[in-house]
Amino acid sequence: MPYLDNRNSILEVLRLHPQEAARLWIEAGHERPSSELMEEARKAGVSIRVIPREQFNRRFKGIKSHICLEWEGFSYTDPDALLAMIPSMAMPFFSAFDGIYDPQNLGNVIRTAACFSLDAIIVPRDNACSVTDTVMNVARGGTEHVKIARVTNLARCIEDLKEKNVFCFGLDEKASKYLYEIDLNGPLCLVLGGEEGLKRLTKERCDMLLKIPGSPDFPSLNVANAFAVAAYEAIRQRKAKK
Amino acid sequence: MPYLDNRNSILEVLRLHPQEAARLWIEAGHERPSSELMEEARKAGVSIRVIPREQFNRRFKGIKSHICLEWEGFSYTDPDALLAMIPSMAMPFFSAFDGIYDPQNLGNVIRTAACFSLDAIIVPRDNACSVTDTVMNVARGGTEHVKIARVTNLARCIEDLKEKNVFCFGLDEKASKYLYEIDLNGPLCLVLGGEEGLKRLTKERCDMLLKIPGSPDFPSLNVANAFAVAAYEAIRQRKAKK
Repeated sequence: MPYLDNRNSILEVLRLHPQEAARLWIEAGHERPSSELMEEARKAGVSIRVIPREQFNRRFKGIKSHICLEWEGFSYTDPDALLAMIPSMAMPFFSAFDGIYDPQNLGNVIRTAACFSLDAIIVPRDNACSVTDTVMNVARGGTEHVKIARVTNLARCIEDLKEKNVFCFGLDEKASKYLYEIDLNGPLCLVLGGEEGLKRLTKERCDMLLKIPGSPDFPSLNVANAFAVAAYEAIRQRKAKK
Repeated sequence: MPYLDNRNSILEVLRLHPQEAARLWIEAGHERPSSELMEEARKAGVSIRVIPREQFNRRFKGIKSHICLEWEGFSYTDPDALLAMIPSMAMPFFSAFDGIYDPQNLGNVIRTAACFSLDAIIVPRDNACSVTDTVMNVARGGTEHVKIARVTNLARCIEDLKEKNVFCFGLDEKASKYLYEIDLNGPLCLVLGGEEGLKRLTKERCDMLLKIPGSPDFPSLNVANAFAVAAYEAIRQRKAKK
């Protein structure tokens, strides 16, 4: 991920494009001269990490300043703007991912979302892979075709979607219903876990849990493949209804 | 000798094919979290070596886990033996891949094939990725659940399958029919390209070409995701018929 270590550049990003900022890193002992930047980061909802000098130097080799903004060349869509767009969408179709760590998986998910014309995908801001150069390469240009929103609290975002009448289906091996047994026509959000499945809190917010028909001896699919299957099923049902 | 460092892959080999396991290596200090694997190794008569961290890192460079199974390599299924089994299969379900080069893709394909209980997957012997330890790690143990046959001539193999009344469907963006418009009940083989789509000669051998419904602006799916979607559609139709 690219870094910014120039004070003015960091300030510009925090003020004008906070959605492009991932994390503000500060070398311990330099909090006071960085107070203005820290204040801006707080306002922008960008997380701040103060780490010991040794760790800072190891992480940001060759950097001369004591402060560093981890920043994406990629423009995320603002989650509030996304929510505001829902009423004007013909048939909203989203997917949310509860912590994908592997850039290959995230890249493939974005490529598939672009192919199936999803309106947006939603990912957590922390404890998840962001849209890095590798992700963009694996997505093969898909990042230009689908909106990607980062949220600080995925469970809260699911609540917001539900309030806007978007039905949230969680994918879970232990669900009692198969994907194809449920009507997926209508505004919907598919909710998937990362590499380790859905977290309990996320699962509890979903309107309903669905499973993919798999072997009882080996029920596990990679997250990108599980997403491809679920998104296809929704598209198939929509085409069939037409 | 190849090695496995994914917990699930190691467990599957120790349980299902212990004769392929040579030695289980453990980094000193990590015996407790590895107790389940050690117990399985003992049951299978596989020797266990606990070595100091430094030695472990030197021996298994680039490994992220603290445990590693030295293993004899993967056993492919003989293509002639596979063809001979067809008459005794209830509803043969194969997939053939015309040159996957990326081990991530091949590993994901195998994992998905295991999840959807395919009878076998067929890959070319040359100009394609073989079942390496990376592939096995990505497949998360799936290689123990699905047969993999390597053939010298994929087009010839498709002819052989057709002679045995296995219907061969090629996946191609430019096909005129969608997957879900065709009855996929019956003995079948899904034929997919590698990263670059189906080769002309392979395409010509297929009984019929099918496409996945995608955006006209961005119709391209990763091969592992395309396979997951097509295999799911076949399974869905089979379950619906029951």
